[in-house]
Amino acid sequence: MEEFKLHIIGCGSANPMKKYHPACQILSMRGKLFMVDCGEGSQMRLAGRGLHINRIGHIFISHTHGDHCFGLPGLISTMGLLGRVSQLHIHAPEELRSFIDIILTDFCQEMDYEVIFHPVDTKAHQLVYEDKSIEVYSLPLRHRVPCCGYLFREKPLQPHIRREMIDAFDIPFSQIANIKAGMDWTTPDGTVIPNHRLTIPADPPRSYAYLSDTAYKPSLAELIQGVDLLFHEATFDAASALRARQTYHSTTTQAATVALKAEAKRLVIGHFSARIKDEQAYLREAQEVFPNTLLAHEAMAIDI
Amino acid sequence: MEEFKLHIIGCGSANPMKKYHPACQILSMRGKLFMVDCGEGSQMRLAGRGLHINRIGHIFISHTHGDHCFGLPGLISTMGLLGRVSQLHIHAPEELRSFIDIILTDFCQEMDYEVIFHPVDTKAHQLVYEDKSIEVYSLPLRHRVPCCGYLFREKPLQPHIRREMIDAFDIPFSQIANIKAGMDWTTPDGTVIPNHRLTIPADPPRSYAYLSDTAYKPSLAELIQGVDLLFHEATFDAASALRARQTYHSTTTQAATVALKAEAKRLVIGHFSARIKDEQAYLREAQEVFPNTLLAHEAMAIDI
Repeated sequence: MEEFKLHIIGCGSANPMKKYHPACQILSMRGKLFMVDCGEGSQMRLAGRGLHINRIGHIFISHTHGDHCFGLPGLISTMGLLGRVSQLHIHAPEELRSFIDIILTDFCQEMDYEVIFHPVDTKAHQLVYEDKSIEVYSLPLRHRVPCCGYLFREKPLQPHIRREMIDAFDIPFSQIANIKAGMDWTTPDGTVIPNHRLTIPADPPRSYAYLSDTAYKPSLAELIQGVDLLFHEATFDAASALRARQTYHSTTTQAATVALKAEAKRLVIGHFSARIKDEQAYLREAQEVFPNTLLAHEAMAIDI
Repeated sequence: MEEFKLHIIGCGSANPMKKYHPACQILSMRGKLFMVDCGEGSQMRLAGRGLHINRIGHIFISHTHGDHCFGLPGLISTMGLLGRVSQLHIHAPEELRSFIDIILTDFCQEMDYEVIFHPVDTKAHQLVYEDKSIEVYSLPLRHRVPCCGYLFREKPLQPHIRREMIDAFDIPFSQIANIKAGMDWTTPDGTVIPNHRLTIPADPPRSYAYLSDTAYKPSLAELIQGVDLLFHEATFDAASALRARQTYHSTTTQAATVALKAEAKRLVIGHFSARIKDEQAYLREAQEVFPNTLLAHEAMAIDI
């Protein structure tokens, strides 16, 4: 199967702590890296994970709180120092634009590459990026400032060729692409070999949803139905639901409820606060609602 | 002796690396912390050193290259999150102002404390800050953008009281301040006890100079004559003098030459590049010119 992997780089929240770093994730997909949020220090931590920053083509930022974007000045500068020439695309709420502009005008005048800012409407669920293999959709979240999550969805994949059938019917190499695209094969004597005998069905397209930061918003489940992997913030334990609501964050139980309603395959919880003492207790709370829950940690790499 | 200590927080240069972090130092002095430069991630590393960020009253920034100031957004935000109310003063080249402004307007609207920006003329050697115990002077450096170092100089200290003499002459407590200030004591029978019999001379005022980043500029030695501790950048080894000149940096030998001309007591070299393989070779090169050289490292705390 093609690579489709989530790397957790930082899974803490705003207060700096020794244990967790601010938000950053990398989704690696067929050699390309997509960055999701970029807290302070992210570039240093990528270096330790063998994820070369100049393989990042697109960065998706959820909102303009520092723990989700203060790693951008350093990252953008370093990309330039390392001789990048290809464009970098930053997808983020409009509110981030002036910060990016200052970085570029005051610190990056001599860079050889271009940074292109794409404002994302945080109130809309819509396509914000696509290439030949992936689509990325915005997911409107409820936070203290305009904020959105992102849904990454593979495009339908082509079926696998059954090599032995190709050989048996002596089908020329030039026809492989047509057969992958669904064509039947007609032998020289006029026999039609149906496509399903020549191919193995494609792997189902995979998907990943990132929901951080947000107050409990169960309606999100409809937008991410059947998602393979869901990251949902769980800044607070179940007992702190009031505090979560006041600060527009979620609890363990709320994160798990969204995963359950979405019929997600797996849930990862993170965005831990400096107050957290017992992560296992957080995990147990989430698993009571949604058993297939994992606890984020900063060496985590999950095949989706 | 009163505390006057340099903590090296980051002694690397622009390219992020696992071994060294970007520039940041803390000068701790009688309970107060002065920060010098603030590369990305500095706040996280202070947390691990027991240096509470809200004890920092003044920050001195040398220039607007990211490896010297990209830790400011996170630091300023976290100070607010931690409930700071006292003013924070940032002394820096005028070129940094718009970056600070954006941080404050776009990310820190709800903070309870004020950030005051003090532009520093990087072409002048002049007093940029003083309080009752310290003076800070700018030191014009030669770099690709406006850049200055800083000289921290204790104000003359008061002499120590000789307790046994105070007791012997039965001098009232109310007169201690006067005697520290230099007054002689006249006994009830009219005998004058000269001040030098009542006191032990004050410790000589100490000083620290920070020179990073700069092309070789031996005339700096005049401005820091007799400095107790000099930090001088040594981005390159002695063999790379041409490359150093081209990039407006210094070599080991050049750093040591400035220390020698300044008759400094001790030299610390740092601002190591990602290319550095053998720090001990750097140290040996500097020590050939100036034997009392130390190699910066990121757990270093030096009593001045």
